[in-house]
Amino acid sequence: MNIFEKCESNVRSYCRNFPDIFHRAKGSIIYSDSGKEYIDFFAGAGALNYGHNHDYIKQKVMSYLDADGIAHGLDMYTSAKEKFLAKFDEVVLSSRKLDYRVQFCGPTGTNAVEAALKLARKVKQRSGIFSFMGAYHGMTLGSLSISGNVGIRAGTIGTSNNVTFMPYPYGFMESFDTIQYIKSVLNDINSGIEKPAAIIFETVQAEGGVVVAPIEWMQRLKNLCDENDILLICDDIQVGCGRTGPFFSFERADIVPDMVVLSKSISGYGFPMSLLLIKPELDVWEPGEHNGTFRGNQLAFVGATAALEYRESCNFEQDVKAKELFLKNFLTQQILPISEKIAIRGIGMIWGIDMKNFGGSSLAKNITSRCFELGLIVERAGRNDTVIKILPPLIIDLVTLEKGCSIIKEAFNDCISK
Amino acid sequence: MNIFEKCESNVRSYCRNFPDIFHRAKGSIIYSDSGKEYIDFFAGAGALNYGHNHDYIKQKVMSYLDADGIAHGLDMYTSAKEKFLAKFDEVVLSSRKLDYRVQFCGPTGTNAVEAALKLARKVKQRSGIFSFMGAYHGMTLGSLSISGNVGIRAGTIGTSNNVTFMPYPYGFMESFDTIQYIKSVLNDINSGIEKPAAIIFETVQAEGGVVVAPIEWMQRLKNLCDENDILLICDDIQVGCGRTGPFFSFERADIVPDMVVLSKSISGYGFPMSLLLIKPELDVWEPGEHNGTFRGNQLAFVGATAALEYRESCNFEQDVKAKELFLKNFLTQQILPISEKIAIRGIGMIWGIDMKNFGGSSLAKNITSRCFELGLIVERAGRNDTVIKILPPLIIDLVTLEKGCSIIKEAFNDCISK
Amino acid sequence: MNIFEKCESNVRSYCRNFPDIFHRAKGSIIYSDSGKEYIDFFAGAGALNYGHNHDYIKQKVMSYLDADGIAHGLDMYTSAKEKFLAKFDEVVLSSRKLDYRVQFCGPTGTNAVEAALKLARKVKQRSGIFSFMGAYHGMTLGSLSISGNVGIRAGTIGTSNNVTFMPYPYGFMESFDTIQYIKSVLNDINSGIEKPAAIIFETVQAEGGVVVAPIEWMQRLKNLCDENDILLICDDIQVGCGRTGPFFSFERADIVPDMVVLSKSISGYGFPMSLLLIKPELDVWEPGEHNGTFRGNQLAFVGATAALEYRESCNFEQDVKAKELFLKNFLTQQILPISEKIAIRGIGMIWGIDMKNFGGSSLAKNITSRCFELGLIVERAGRNDTVIKILPPLIIDLVTLEKGCSIIKEAFNDCISK
Amino acid sequence: MNIFEKCESNVRSYCRNFPDIFHRAKGSIIYSDSGKEYIDFFAGAGALNYGHNHDYIKQKVMSYLDADGIAHGLDMYTSAKEKFLAKFDEVVLSSRKLDYRVQFCGPTGTNAVEAALKLARKVKQRSGIFSFMGAYHGMTLGSLSISGNVGIRAGTIGTSNNVTFMPYPYGFMESFDTIQYIKSVLNDINSGIEKPAAIIFETVQAEGGVVVAPIEWMQRLKNLCDENDILLICDDIQVGCGRTGPFFSFERADIVPDMVVLSKSISGYGFPMSLLLIKPELDVWEPGEHNGTFRGNQLAFVGATAALEYRESCNFEQDVKAKELFLKNFLTQQILPISEKIAIRGIGMIWGIDMKNFGGSSLAKNITSRCFELGLIVERAGRNDTVIKILPPLIIDLVTLEKGCSIIKEAFNDCISK
Repeated sequence: MNIFEKCESNVRSYCRNFPDIFHRAKGSIIYSDSGKEYIDFFAGAGALNYGHNHDYIKQKVMSYLDADGIAHGLDMYTSAKEKFLAKFDEVVLSSRKLDYRVQFCGPTGTNAVEAALKLARKVKQRSGIFSFMGAYHGMTLGSLSISGNVGIRAGTIGTSNNVTFMPYPYGFMESFDTIQYIKSVLNDINSGIEKPAAIIFETVQAEGGVVVAPIEWMQRLKNLCDENDILLICDDIQVGCGRTGPFFSFERADIVPDMVVLSKSISGYGFPMSLLLIKPELDVWEPGEHNGTFRGNQLAFVGATAALEYRESCNFEQDVKAKELFLKNFLTQQILPISEKIAIRGIGMIWGIDMKNFGGSSLAKNITSRCFELGLIVERAGRNDTVIKILPPLIIDLVTLEKGCSIIKEAFNDCISK
Repeated sequence: MNIFEKCESNVRSYCRNFPDIFHRAKGSIIYSDSGKEYIDFFAGAGALNYGHNHDYIKQKVMSYLDADGIAHGLDMYTSAKEKFLAKFDEVVLSSRKLDYRVQFCGPTGTNAVEAALKLARKVKQRSGIFSFMGAYHGMTLGSLSISGNVGIRAGTIGTSNNVTFMPYPYGFMESFDTIQYIKSVLNDINSGIEKPAAIIFETVQAEGGVVVAPIEWMQRLKNLCDENDILLICDDIQVGCGRTGPFFSFERADIVPDMVVLSKSISGYGFPMSLLLIKPELDVWEPGEHNGTFRGNQLAFVGATAALEYRESCNFEQDVKAKELFLKNFLTQQILPISEKIAIRGIGMIWGIDMKNFGGSSLAKNITSRCFELGLIVERAGRNDTVIKILPPLIIDLVTLEKGCSIIKEAFNDCISK
Repeated sequence: MNIFEKCESNVRSYCRNFPDIFHRAKGSIIYSDSGKEYIDFFAGAGALNYGHNHDYIKQKVMSYLDADGIAHGLDMYTSAKEKFLAKFDEVVLSSRKLDYRVQFCGPTGTNAVEAALKLARKVKQRSGIFSFMGAYHGMTLGSLSISGNVGIRAGTIGTSNNVTFMPYPYGFMESFDTIQYIKSVLNDINSGIEKPAAIIFETVQAEGGVVVAPIEWMQRLKNLCDENDILLICDDIQVGCGRTGPFFSFERADIVPDMVVLSKSISGYGFPMSLLLIKPELDVWEPGEHNGTFRGNQLAFVGATAALEYRESCNFEQDVKAKELFLKNFLTQQILPISEKIAIRGIGMIWGIDMKNFGGSSLAKNITSRCFELGLIVERAGRNDTVIKILPPLIIDLVTLEKGCSIIKEAFNDCISK
Repeated sequence: MNIFEKCESNVRSYCRNFPDIFHRAKGSIIYSDSGKEYIDFFAGAGALNYGHNHDYIKQKVMSYLDADGIAHGLDMYTSAKEKFLAKFDEVVLSSRKLDYRVQFCGPTGTNAVEAALKLARKVKQRSGIFSFMGAYHGMTLGSLSISGNVGIRAGTIGTSNNVTFMPYPYGFMESFDTIQYIKSVLNDINSGIEKPAAIIFETVQAEGGVVVAPIEWMQRLKNLCDENDILLICDDIQVGCGRTGPFFSFERADIVPDMVVLSKSISGYGFPMSLLLIKPELDVWEPGEHNGTFRGNQLAFVGATAALEYRESCNFEQDVKAKELFLKNFLTQQILPISEKIAIRGIGMIWGIDMKNFGGSSLAKNITSRCFELGLIVERAGRNDTVIKILPPLIIDLVTLEKGCSIIKEAFNDCISK
């Protein structure tokens, strides 16, 4: 591992938890240089809902490359983008009667979040943004300013971006009515807090520790926004694209946010891509007002189109529901009984085992390390990394899913008995 | 063009200047759906120094895909990253006796700029950043705060990020000693401006209108930083990777910045990728303190490695010098004589024809539009888009280069005679 | 009233509610040019606890002037300041075993608040300040940034000062444990809110609508600050100097804040004066680091010394308790029975009649206007000015107090029967 | 000096340079407890243009107190305010054909500066303010943000207020056209600096080291503001009220700023008072939008009215011109010849001896300390306190003026010969 230690910045992180060199991958399996196989319960942090190197998508991508399709297209009109837009409109938007304009942002989630914040401020001509405690939205300055983790802000000394963090229904904050709290702040002219341009939220706070927002809470949040002329932005980067079952994670609450951010799995193949969906009446951008060199990552468009085609060919949503049931049962029956101090939370194919009160961060780390030794890649999330986050590719077959789960069980046994 | 108008956000811009649908490209030529061929003097805004779909790189990329090499690797250790680091270290760093750590950022230039700002603030525990009038560094909030164009900031109401804009030697600001100005500010305890963590600069302000910094100016800037314990960050996104001749654009001044930002052409194939180079003693990141889902765009690593291999195989730098001479001669002999009100500026293979005093933005637009009709893609840049920016792929052959230039000449004739 | 309308800025306000020209005053009575007498239940918004032109203080002030005592002394050592410091130390600090350094600020409350914020940030090297919803601390930029009323901030566009507003136990916010809320925010590394340098609070939110903090709440707030290395600043401008009974309003909770701001009644005669009290270990100011031309308002020092002397000569605290009882009885027996929708709140000699649910701002205004016609000056406060604030001079005699109260009763009758 | 050291904050400063306890003063003479007499060349930092305890003003103030005139009046209409407004309108405004509304601010200069900034931002709905390097405007957060001295900002970590410091014609900045610099910034859409709401300036930077702005510079500044729809605010706190000869210091440039800040000597007797003068069309304040307990310092109004009456009774302006000539001659003939490294600057009755290149701060300090021993109070100012600032009361008689000057000469001799 010489060259990494010699040349790569100290900022590298996942490689420290998964100390092997990987070279090949297929579906839910990653292969290391040394020939070892790992089941992947991490799925590129949500970027690989379709698994690694999905054959249908791969074939489309390779054909495109082979034919010298344009690889880099800025934001010019290209055939690849045309096909993606048509397919996305048909499969995702029209079929749900959703009316959104699509903005292709610099191909990272954080870039689309930044675009959303800028547009909201421009539309409403207000500077404030409400975000939630526990939120994670990205690492560029705007996104960082709305992310809850204060431990990663060291470098932003002296910047200030008019963000107010509101309580998310979790921990002590679950003990009172958090929507009423926000209402009270907005209705009190002496609250010190001005009406924001937008409220940005995640339906599931993944990095916050897999905290699932109640349906009624989301509905009341949407109503509160409407009543107060505030835009509602849903950051669906990690749990969109089918992670919770339906394509968008907010569908379960039957709400339509004013803007939606998509990234991670949208390209189908792990290629960098991000979208901002904007209600047409909010699309007040001047041409070029938000730009970026890599908005036109054509290979990602090709992959994204293929992924949507593949999606149509099978019963994705129902399939996820089945695996959700499996995971829930496994956690309830195999993990929860280990200790009443363990909590489990989740929905669809994102689940967390909260070890906060049972060994904390250190036991959680021991368990995920032991999983790695046993051939399973699984990460931690949440406050102080106490939550073991289960995030397999959606296309994982039941045998592999079961195998991964049994490794978790085994790791628990190994670590607790020590 | 129905689907674009129906579905794509109003923010789309280049497509408005180049209203055709493109589907294939090779080298310096782009082909539209309708079969029309365009010479490309835009080169993906600098992302395509090696031209479109370069065969050597393409073959490496396709082999990698075919073998199910990992496509998405977060920041884990992968074979593709290992090979890139080794090659980059060998060809770019060691051969120049440069000692930098490499940080893989979210794969957009702006993300690497954000990382640089954060790290500088963290290292120096100061909040201020000096940037330059005319600068362009990107569209996320941190990068935007150091970009000169105030017309694209509408959405950032109420954010403030302790940035001070200093005069760059251009226009009126060229009439006095801008380095002495900065010194005077730093040495005056009553200047109102605190010592910054870093000064970020471009050796050529491309978006600022192709303004080339004098060598002595850069050297004095570096000295000023050293004397005042300020970090110097070079944003080499657009003019690095050989655009001005040598790999890094600052080599001509024989200085070594404390951090260097690379992106655009680094992947060789137009794939999203960015790097932050950091002097080892400044690499104080905590693991994961700046992260991002797409840091490990493996295909980009494969492309980047291939590009460096290709680079070694030919005499790139000398080749650029030859074409620089050609461009300079063309502009001096064919364009300058049109009017004494026209100015030309440039270096290597980035040149600008400044029409500010000769027809301004509107004539510049007419000319580039006429170029497009005649089969040449060339963009405008600079204040109010008055500068016609010539930015061909570095690998363009002389015949095509000449052909492109003659289209420019023809467009001038057509537009002026009107 | 010609000259005022011709020459004075539209910003003037109290004169609109009390439209007469006043020229003389004594004790609790103000006389207008036209010879009309008014009982004063406003007491200079708390600056006239000793009433108007108190004879003992007046005589000291006139002697000083007559002898050409220094009127303006910057922050040089003067006899007047020396006497004040000795008396303040003896009567206020030592007798309570309080160990504070005294900072003479520019002679307005807001200036001392600004000094407190600056010092707290300097001491803790953190930028954040927690303030409370409903708080009022002044009108200069720093003080305004910690004041709850967002309606008076129009002119501060684009300034941002890292202030977080916390819930004060009032309204909906009273329905849950607000101290636990703050604790939860501080203990949650993902709350998005960094540990502040200081928390600033009022023991009674006067402008917030006469909201009295519970004793236990203040004690828990102090503990929370101690446990988290956060400074606690008490803004005792309006309710210090005996307004609630003891000299400092926080004495009832038996806590010792790290800094205390005094102003309003400290000079005894309504002269501009303010103090910041600082625990010795926090007094890390460099000489002159916070200054101001009028720090040495010598007449105010003379008045303040005389006021403390007078204070010693009578049983001030017990006297206030007696009048508190009178006011409470009056409000409970005469006002509350008018409607169950009326709320009363108060302590010592600051009381509020909350009309929010009974006629609101408009009825409250009608009543105070009617009071004025009947010869009583009484103001409104609180959200939307719905609270009638009773704030007589502390030295008011019982007959006049009773007379003022009966005018309020009469005004209620007059306005409700309409 | 026990009680001061025991009780007063370390922030105290002038007392360190003038270590005596003062108790009485008259005209230009201050008397200490020990009976020593000092000539006052400091004049309360400009607050005592009429000298100490001026008899005419004193008699008016004492009569007012004796008659129980209202001492504290918030912003109600009072006879004292009425008389002041009428006199100010007659003597200062109407006679100069100036049309300003008068705002009574909290009675410190900084408070009026804060009001000016808020109003400018509100009127123009822009957040930026341009201030000048070397400027001093006060110590509350808004005023501090526009003051050049970065050494006194330690406590403002993390606040940011959109202020841009522009070069003032001094030092290196005098070597180019600073007005053209500002123009260039405003006209360059890529300068990174947005059009501000206002530019605030001093006609003489007193704390900046007695730097006198050229008349043409002020005129061009005013034109620049007009052409760009930017408000011009003149901070005339230290050099207004006749210090440079005419009542307003900007009269010599024949310009009319949009707002003017007055304080210091306006009350005539050293009482805290400040005014903001506002062009009527800019007076868009809501009632109470900027307030403060001590806006109605009635004794100051009485003093101010008397001072204006006194002013009328003598030929103030001509008198100042005569003393200006005396001071200029003294400095030119007695001080300048000491060394060619000494610089002198000044106008009216504010003059500076710049020792920057001749012994610097330490020799300047030695000289002012020696002056104090010899019975003269004179302060230093400017960058690093290298400028000896001569600021006698305007009413000083020529004998005392001469005596003070000869002490300075003697102190120079004493300190240099050492």
